[in-house]
Amino acid sequence: MRQPQFEAMNREELELLQLERLQSTLTRAYRQVKFYRRRLDEHGLKPEDIRELRDLARLPCTTREDLSENYPYGMFAVPLRDIVRIVSSPGTTDRPLVVGYTSPDLKLWQELLARLYTAAGVTRDDIVQFILPPGLANWRRDLMAGAEYLGASVIPAASLNFAKELMVMRDYKTSVLVTTPSIARHLLTVMDRLDLTPAELSLKRALLVAAPLPSQVRREIEEGLQIKIATAYGITEVMGPGLAFSCEADAGFHFSADHFYPEILDPQTGRPLDPGAEGELVITTLTTVAFPLVRFKSGDLTSLNPEPCACGRTLVRLGPIRGRTDAIFSVGGIKVHPDQIGRLLKDLLGGHLPRFSYGVQTEAGLEFLALDLRVDEQLFSDEIKALEGLCYRVRRYFLDHLGIQTRVTLKETAVS
Amino acid sequence: MRQPQFEAMNREELELLQLERLQSTLTRAYRQVKFYRRRLDEHGLKPEDIRELRDLARLPCTTREDLSENYPYGMFAVPLRDIVRIVSSPGTTDRPLVVGYTSPDLKLWQELLARLYTAAGVTRDDIVQFILPPGLANWRRDLMAGAEYLGASVIPAASLNFAKELMVMRDYKTSVLVTTPSIARHLLTVMDRLDLTPAELSLKRALLVAAPLPSQVRREIEEGLQIKIATAYGITEVMGPGLAFSCEADAGFHFSADHFYPEILDPQTGRPLDPGAEGELVITTLTTVAFPLVRFKSGDLTSLNPEPCACGRTLVRLGPIRGRTDAIFSVGGIKVHPDQIGRLLKDLLGGHLPRFSYGVQTEAGLEFLALDLRVDEQLFSDEIKALEGLCYRVRRYFLDHLGIQTRVTLKETAVS
Repeated sequence: MRQPQFEAMNREELELLQLERLQSTLTRAYRQVKFYRRRLDEHGLKPEDIRELRDLARLPCTTREDLSENYPYGMFAVPLRDIVRIVSSPGTTDRPLVVGYTSPDLKLWQELLARLYTAAGVTRDDIVQFILPPGLANWRRDLMAGAEYLGASVIPAASLNFAKELMVMRDYKTSVLVTTPSIARHLLTVMDRLDLTPAELSLKRALLVAAPLPSQVRREIEEGLQIKIATAYGITEVMGPGLAFSCEADAGFHFSADHFYPEILDPQTGRPLDPGAEGELVITTLTTVAFPLVRFKSGDLTSLNPEPCACGRTLVRLGPIRGRTDAIFSVGGIKVHPDQIGRLLKDLLGGHLPRFSYGVQTEAGLEFLALDLRVDEQLFSDEIKALEGLCYRVRRYFLDHLGIQTRVTLKETAVS
Repeated sequence: MRQPQFEAMNREELELLQLERLQSTLTRAYRQVKFYRRRLDEHGLKPEDIRELRDLARLPCTTREDLSENYPYGMFAVPLRDIVRIVSSPGTTDRPLVVGYTSPDLKLWQELLARLYTAAGVTRDDIVQFILPPGLANWRRDLMAGAEYLGASVIPAASLNFAKELMVMRDYKTSVLVTTPSIARHLLTVMDRLDLTPAELSLKRALLVAAPLPSQVRREIEEGLQIKIATAYGITEVMGPGLAFSCEADAGFHFSADHFYPEILDPQTGRPLDPGAEGELVITTLTTVAFPLVRFKSGDLTSLNPEPCACGRTLVRLGPIRGRTDAIFSVGGIKVHPDQIGRLLKDLLGGHLPRFSYGVQTEAGLEFLALDLRVDEQLFSDEIKALEGLCYRVRRYFLDHLGIQTRVTLKETAVS
C-alpha cells in the first residue's frame, strides 16, 4: 500500500475528511466559477447549506454538455497563469472538453497513479513500457508521469509498429506493460507471427486501461503472455486514469474516495441509491484546484461496495462497469458520441450529410469504427480514384478529430 | 535571466567549476562504465591524468557508433533501478541509440529548458502550444515538461491537423508556439487558406527547434505571424533540446557550459581549434548522472564565441550550424543516416535491396523524404494494386522506424 493512512482509513475519519474537503470545494466553486454560482443560485442554495455528506444530493448535477458550453476556460477556478497544463478531449460533445491542471493538481494525480501502480505490484525496480494509441496521448502522458514519479524506468512507446515494440520489450527487458485490452490481445497475434515466446521476454505484469476487460479476454492474455494483469478505472474529465484501481484481491476498483466523492444515482429519478445497487456513477472532486467538478455525471453504470477488502484497503470499491446511461461508446478505449460521427461527416463534406451506418469491429484484437457511407448523387463520381480519395479523407479526418481508426465502405445507391 | 549566478558567471570561476565537475564525471565514467574504462586503459590513461581542462584533449572521442555497439544499456553509469526514463532514437546507426535518465537528470534538463524559455521571453503567464511531428515525440515531451516546470500553461498538440491546431491556437488564446521551422511555414499556408489573420490570434512568440532557421525563412515567419522568434540547439543523445539557446541579442546560441563542456575539433586532425575557428562540436557532460558522455562527437560543424554577449550572459556562444562532418541529414527535424534507408528497405523486402535514390523535398513548407525505387524483376507485379501496396508499406515502415514522412515513386526498368 502506498498511503495506508488514507487507503486503509477508518470510515468515520474518512467521512469527516470528505465533508471538510467537500465544503471547501463548494465554497471555491461558488466563488470562482460563474457556472456553479448561477446553478446554485437558481436552486436557491449556498455552499453552507451542505452540512452533511448526504446534503450533496440537494445540489444539481454537472454534465459533459455543461463543460462543452463553457468552452474553453469557463469551468476553470483559477486564473490561467496558475494553470500549467491544458488538455482537451474531443468526441463526446459539440466542442472539445477542456480540462486544466495546476502544478499541485499534477502532483496529486502522480500520487494517485503511484497508488495504482503499487496496488498492481509495480515498484521502482520495474521497467515499464507504454503501448497506447495516439488517440490516448493524454492518458499515456499521465500514466508515464506516474510511473516515473514512482521511480520505475519508463520506456515511452515510439510507434504503433507492434513487431518493433515487441523487440524493444525483449531487448530492454521490459517487466511491466501498460496498454489497452485490445492491444494486448493483438500483441499475442504478432508474437505468434514472429515466433516469439513469453520465455524470451522478461514481462511479469500488465496494466490494462481505457476499456473493460471481460474475464475471457483476461484469461487469454494472462495465459498467452504468462503474466498477471491489473486494471484501473478513470475518466478523462476527472483527472484521467488514476480514479480507481484493482488490487491483488481483484474484487472491484478501489475508488480514491479521499480525493473524489462517489455517488450512485438512479438514472431515471436521479436519486442516490443504496450501496450495492446499480446506477450511474456521479463524482465530486474534493481536492483538485483548477477544475472542481460538482456531481459530475460519468455516464458509467456501476455499483459501490463499501465492505473492507481482503487486501486491507477500506476505500470503497466500484463494481464492474455494466454499460452507459447515454449513447457514448468506445473505439479502442476512446469515447465517441454517435452525434459526432454525423457532425464530422457534414463538416468534411461541406455541409452535405449522406446516409450512413456504423459499428465497432475488431481485427486481430484491434478495434476500429466500421463506417458504411451511401454514395448518393452529391458524392457520386465515376472515378474510382475520387471515391478512394473520399474514403482516405474520411479516415484521416476521423483519426485527426477523434483519434480513432476508421474503415470506410462505400455503398452504392441508384442515381436518379 | 533564470540563473544569473551561472549564466553570467565569471570566466575563471566557470573554468574551476568545469574542471571540478569534469574530474568527477571522468572518475564515475571510468568506474561505472566498462566502455570508458577499456577506452582509457587502451590509451594508458587514468581519470586523475586530467588535471586541467586542456588535458581533456588527451582522451579519445565517443561516437554514435560506440553508443550503438553498447545497445541497449551498456553506456549507463547507474543501475537500472535508478533510471526513470529510457528513450531511444532510431535513424542514425545500426541499432537505436538508447539514453537513460535518473530523476535528478530530468530535473536538470527541466532547469535548462527553463533557462531557454526565459531567454526566449516566455513566462508563467504564457499559454504555450506544442506542434511537433510524432517523430519528435521525445523532444516534445522534454519541451513540454520544461514549460510546465516554468509554470506556463501548456497545451499538448493532439494531432497534425493544422487547421484544427490553428483553431485551438485562436480559441485557447495561445501566446507562444513551439514548433519546427518547416511547420511554422506550413501554418502560414493553412492560415491563408482559412482566411485567418494574425490579429485573430493572441500569438506573441515562437520557439523554433529541431532544424536550422535560415534568415529568409525567419523573416517570412516573423512577418507572416507577426511574432518574435527564438531558437535553440540540442542533441537527442545529450539531454535533448536544452543544450544551447538564443537570447534577445540573437547572436548565437548560449551553451550551458556549466553542465556541458564544449570543444571545437578540426574534423581532419581531431585537434582542438581556437575560439572562432570552425570545426566539429564535441561535448563532454559535466553533471548528468545516468549517461555520462566523454568527448561525444556531435557531427555538427560550428564555432565557439567566448566574448560576453550584449544580453549580459557570459556563457560561450555557438555560431551557426554550417553543416555536418558525416552523411547524416535531417527530414523535418529528424536525423537520418543514408545507410538506414537501404537497411530498412532490405528488411522490409525480405533481404532483397532494389536500386534506389532519394532526396529531401518540401511541399507547402513541410519536409519529406522523396524515395525513387527501381521496380526490378523481384519487385515486379502487373497488378497496380500490388505495386500501390508496396508504396504504402514502404511509407508506413519508414514512418514507424524513422518517424519521417516518405513519398515513394516506382521507376520502371526493363524486365530481362
